[in-house]
Amino acid sequence: MSREDTRFWNESIERMNRSKLEEIQGERLRELVKRLYESVPFYRRKLKGAGIDPSDVRGLPDLRKLPFTSKDELRENYPFGLLAVPKSELVEVHMTSGTTGIPTPNFLTLKDVETWGELIARSLYMGGLRKGDVFQITPSFSLFTGGFSFFYGARKIGSFIVPTGPGNSKRQIELMKELGTTSFASIVSYAVRLTEVAREMGIDPSRDLGVRRIFMGSEMSTPQLKRRLMEAWSADVFDAYGQTETYGGPSVGLDCHLHDGIHVWEDHFLVEIVDPKTGEPVGNEEKGELVVTTLTKDAMPLLRYRTRDITFIYDAVEHDCGRTHRRIGWIEGRTDDMIKYRGVNFWPSFIESIILKYDELSEHYQVELFSERGSEYMVIKIEAKNVLQEGERRRLSHLIEDELRRRFMFEAKVEITEPHVLPRFETGKAKRVIDNRERKI
Amino acid sequence: MSREDTRFWNESIERMNRSKLEEIQGERLRELVKRLYESVPFYRRKLKGAGIDPSDVRGLPDLRKLPFTSKDELRENYPFGLLAVPKSELVEVHMTSGTTGIPTPNFLTLKDVETWGELIARSLYMGGLRKGDVFQITPSFSLFTGGFSFFYGARKIGSFIVPTGPGNSKRQIELMKELGTTSFASIVSYAVRLTEVAREMGIDPSRDLGVRRIFMGSEMSTPQLKRRLMEAWSADVFDAYGQTETYGGPSVGLDCHLHDGIHVWEDHFLVEIVDPKTGEPVGNEEKGELVVTTLTKDAMPLLRYRTRDITFIYDAVEHDCGRTHRRIGWIEGRTDDMIKYRGVNFWPSFIESIILKYDELSEHYQVELFSERGSEYMVIKIEAKNVLQEGERRRLSHLIEDELRRRFMFEAKVEITEPHVLPRFETGKAKRVIDNRERKI
Ligand SMILES: [Zn+2]
Ligand SMILES: [Zn+2]
Repeated sequence: MSREDTRFWNESIERMNRSKLEEIQGERLRELVKRLYESVPFYRRKLKGAGIDPSDVRGLPDLRKLPFTSKDELRENYPFGLLAVPKSELVEVHMTSGTTGIPTPNFLTLKDVETWGELIARSLYMGGLRKGDVFQITPSFSLFTGGFSFFYGARKIGSFIVPTGPGNSKRQIELMKELGTTSFASIVSYAVRLTEVAREMGIDPSRDLGVRRIFMGSEMSTPQLKRRLMEAWSADVFDAYGQTETYGGPSVGLDCHLHDGIHVWEDHFLVEIVDPKTGEPVGNEEKGELVVTTLTKDAMPLLRYRTRDITFIYDAVEHDCGRTHRRIGWIEGRTDDMIKYRGVNFWPSFIESIILKYDELSEHYQVELFSERGSEYMVIKIEAKNVLQEGERRRLSHLIEDELRRRFMFEAKVEITEPHVLPRFETGKAKRVIDNRERKI
Repeated sequence: MSREDTRFWNESIERMNRSKLEEIQGERLRELVKRLYESVPFYRRKLKGAGIDPSDVRGLPDLRKLPFTSKDELRENYPFGLLAVPKSELVEVHMTSGTTGIPTPNFLTLKDVETWGELIARSLYMGGLRKGDVFQITPSFSLFTGGFSFFYGARKIGSFIVPTGPGNSKRQIELMKELGTTSFASIVSYAVRLTEVAREMGIDPSRDLGVRRIFMGSEMSTPQLKRRLMEAWSADVFDAYGQTETYGGPSVGLDCHLHDGIHVWEDHFLVEIVDPKTGEPVGNEEKGELVVTTLTKDAMPLLRYRTRDITFIYDAVEHDCGRTHRRIGWIEGRTDDMIKYRGVNFWPSFIESIILKYDELSEHYQVELFSERGSEYMVIKIEAKNVLQEGERRRLSHLIEDELRRRFMFEAKVEITEPHVLPRFETGKAKRVIDNRERKI
């Protein structure tokens, strides 16, 4: 069977039986710990501090003995403190700047770039991307990994890459028509923006454009938003998962066409879920912080890296798509983005999932927090799709306020606005929460 | 001799004797014409119109019988009219948007991307870039070709690529320190901007940064500006030449370390100089419009493509660097950018070359044209490097006005301004000429 006839980019790996897969994982973990101990002083100190000698690590069951690595440690050792290879072997770097100003870097050797491309090719191919597809890549090509991730994967597949990067949205839509774009990659908020711009141009994406696949990365989407995009474009929409530090942007995994969890490429990544406070494992299918160990990274491997992303791992292993690689659930939020309001933790995704149930409401919303005389208040502004009557606006506000109270036990004032009054996001991640509280509490 | 020990990326080709090189050129030209005739209706029509059958083309001496291809024809046939391969073979596209709004595209197959990388690797290696170099790429990675050009070349060499893209200049300088950048690529005006930003940060590039090579592309520099950059950075500065339509950005050639003309990679490009008005060949070492024929392009070859760039071809073939590939002179300007003022044609580069003789003056200048009651006027504003006395400013103004009158026979009013009053250019080409004339005459 030729590659064109199958849904698998690398069938022997994607459908590998679990005992074989876990044997490979155990072997790679052993090698990894040995290598980190020998080549990276930072890890040697940590392992010694935890009383671990590489010879103690015989396989997967020993994973939980090993120390965690945190994002702060990556920053503290910026730039070259976590390298496991000589600097002269590096061929590329990406980094996130973060809010602190100190970057979280990812350095890559040629081998890493190869693996990165293989991982993304597997994901894109799983999502249906093929040679002959016209693939418009709208995430930025820069120190940010989004653009290059999709680029390396699509190059391996042989698709026709249209490397636009972000912005210039009207031109992006024109290019889709001119070149016959069949798939595009985007961060979530930009896919929403492109939908809106197309409509402003009098173009119905589902009817007038030939896009049949959208690959989203970098931001969290909600199943509700994804469904809306699927309808708007008559396209299948996929969520890629990853972070700059692992390989680059969306390299850890993607949901298959069944859209029931994100397959993690387990020959390259070990995943665990731990309690974000205690670091202890959680129960089966329980939510917690995702911890990733990179099994094959060459330049800068990560041992039990605390991703700060909250999700769960599915119990079931064999999936109906035929793949044996474990799935994680939708990413509910990043602990970084979590907001504490009146003592309750929440993510904007909670609010989004409620808003998008209402056909009258658009994907554009903004959450504003402020404090007055020691009390906290939240105002949620949501754009209606079309101009609504006052009574209708009030009805929707109350429905959403009630649901927020019932489900998350918090009080918020909801305002339904006219269309086109909230900010749009063209060249970076959406900023949906404006926190004007005196002290963040 | 290993690759690391030589100044040649591909010695057997770069030093190939002329008769062998011309034999290859002739062979490739024959194949090209045959292929275009057979696969591209546009070229078949043109060749037929010129009364040419592919069998008439036996070698290089037949080049001048062949019809020209113009930028307008590329636009008229946008998007796919000039393809010599099926669309399904394309893997990448770049384009310039131009002022007309209709793009000039360049489509590439995998073979084209390979050749493109080889061409740039040759140039960068000639300029001294090696594995182990930290190479910061500041031109944009997008439909614009600058970023990807340098990327493909540096990847072949194995250098450590820092893919910043443009903008965020302060961060660019910090990255140079943090990562130990040894070389960077830039469009000309951005190299000027980076120099200025470094100094504003209290950093002397020549002393505090480790950059030893600067590769410039996309805009025209003058020898004077280049000398200034060399001094400011204690770096060797190279000018890459090319255009989106040939392979991508700076792929046609680069000046070697002797900085005496730009070596054109003649196994891939045939170059001619013609009179821009008549299309007739000019005399030896005479200036005219550069015409390029791409000998190896797969997706979208160009036959006698009118570049609109004004330069000359050196008579001498063997160069002291050991290369046998012909050199072209500095690009004086593009016919597109040429400005007619009081009946005289000029390019901003003429003005720049005068300004930069004066140590008191910066690289920041602006040319403003306006008309009043049927007469045309020109005001040239030039920033002083430091605050100057009124008398000194007047003296410099007069010196430059005199030289403009003497050398180019035009009257202009020159104003020397305080430092930091003219616009800076971070993310695109510099706009130095503001033409406010009622009719462009
Ligand atoms: Zn599946
Ligand atoms: Zn030379």
